[in-house]
Amino acid sequence: MIRRERLIVETRGRGFRDLTARVREAVARLAGDCDGLAHLFCRHTSCSLIITENADPDVRGDLERLARRWAPDGDPIYAHELEGPDDMAAHARTVLTGCELTLPIEKGRLLLGTWQGIFLWEHRTTPHERELVLTVYS
Amino acid sequence: MIRRERLIVETRGRGFRDLTARVREAVARLAGDCDGLAHLFCRHTSCSLIITENADPDVRGDLERLARRWAPDGDPIYAHELEGPDDMAAHARTVLTGCELTLPIEKGRLLLGTWQGIFLWEHRTTPHERELVLTVYS
Amino acid sequence: MIRRERLIVETRGRGFRDLTARVREAVARLAGDCDGLAHLFCRHTSCSLIITENADPDVRGDLERLARRWAPDGDPIYAHELEGPDDMAAHARTVLTGCELTLPIEKGRLLLGTWQGIFLWEHRTTPHERELVLTVYS
Repeated sequence: MIRRERLIVETRGRGFRDLTARVREAVARLAGDCDGLAHLFCRHTSCSLIITENADPDVRGDLERLARRWAPDGDPIYAHELEGPDDMAAHARTVLTGCELTLPIEKGRLLLGTWQGIFLWEHRTTPHERELVLTVYS
Repeated sequence: MIRRERLIVETRGRGFRDLTARVREAVARLAGDCDGLAHLFCRHTSCSLIITENADPDVRGDLERLARRWAPDGDPIYAHELEGPDDMAAHARTVLTGCELTLPIEKGRLLLGTWQGIFLWEHRTTPHERELVLTVYS
Repeated sequence: MIRRERLIVETRGRGFRDLTARVREAVARLAGDCDGLAHLFCRHTSCSLIITENADPDVRGDLERLARRWAPDGDPIYAHELEGPDDMAAHARTVLTGCELTLPIEKGRLLLGTWQGIFLWEHRTTPHERELVLTVYS
C-alpha cells in the first residue's frame, strides 16, 4: 500500500534543518505498524537531503566548510550566475550530495542507525520554502 | 504492481542527455493514473543519472567544469588507465554523483519540481550506448 | 510483498568490501523468481555503499586516493575530531558517496551491469562491524 504526505520546510538560508523527528512522526502515522520503505524527495535543485551524524553540530559546520571547496561561491569558471554567487554553487552541491533518500521501516519505525539523522541542507544563502514528498510503501 | 521497461540512450561522448520527457512518457504509460514510485537504474560505471536545473544549459557546462576538479582526466595518482585518460575520471565521477534515482509518481505523473530535469551524464569522451532499467511501483 | 534481512559486514579498516555475491545470494533467496527492487541501507555515518567497477582493484585504490582530496584526514578546517583525524573525513566521504542503494531485480536476479559491483567502502582507519538492512520488494 502507498501512502503519501507533503512536508514544507522553511529554511533560514544556508545550513542544515534536522528533519529526523518530523519524518519519524509522519512515517509512524502513514505506516501504522507495518514493515516497508520510506522515500523522501526534495522538489528543488539548490538544496540536498542527506543522512549524517546527528550528535555533534560541528559535523555540519565542517561539511559546510568542505562544500566551499567542492563548489565555491562565485567561482570564475561559472557561466551560470543569474541569481548571485551562491546560485551555481548550490546546484553543484545538490548534484554531489543528492536530493532523495530511501529508508527502511520496521513495524512503523524508521530503521536509522543510532547516529544517523536526516537533514535538509539548504545551499542558498537566503531563506527558502522547500517542498518535500514523503512516500511510504508498506 | 511492478512494471518495467528498458531504455537505451545513445550518448555523443562526454556531456548530458535530457531524459525528462522520455521518462515522463514511459512512466505515464506504465503507471496509468496511479500513485507510486519510479526507479531509474543505469547499468554502467562510467556515466551518472542526476537531477539538476533544467532551464539554463550553462548549469550543465559549469558541472562539467567542476567535475574536472573533482576527478581530473589522466591524473598522475591513477593506477587504472586501461581505456585512456578519461577512464578512471569517469568511474570516480559516477561514484560521486550516482547511477540510480527514485522519483515520486502522482496520478501517473512524475512529481518533479518546476526546475528539475533528469539527465544522463556521460563521463567517457567517446559515444556509448547506455542501458537503463525503469521500474514503476504503483 | 516485502521481505527483509540483516547483513553484518566486518571491515578491516579503510578500504572496500565486495558485497556483490552476498547480496545476489540474499536477493535470490528473498525474491524467489519474482521481479522487483532491492534496497540496501547502511546504518552508519562513516562508511558508504557504492556501485563501481568490479574487475580491476586499481579502480578502488584510485577512489581511495581521490577521497583524500575530497575530504582529507585531519584537515585544519575540521572542528569535529573526537575520534581522531579520520573521523570527520569519514563522515564527509559518506555524505559525498551515499549510504543506500536501490537495485532492480528480474526473475529473482539482480539486474547489475556486467562491470557493476556493490561495495561497502569503510572510511574509518580501524576495523568496524557494520550493519546493513536489505529489503526486497516484489
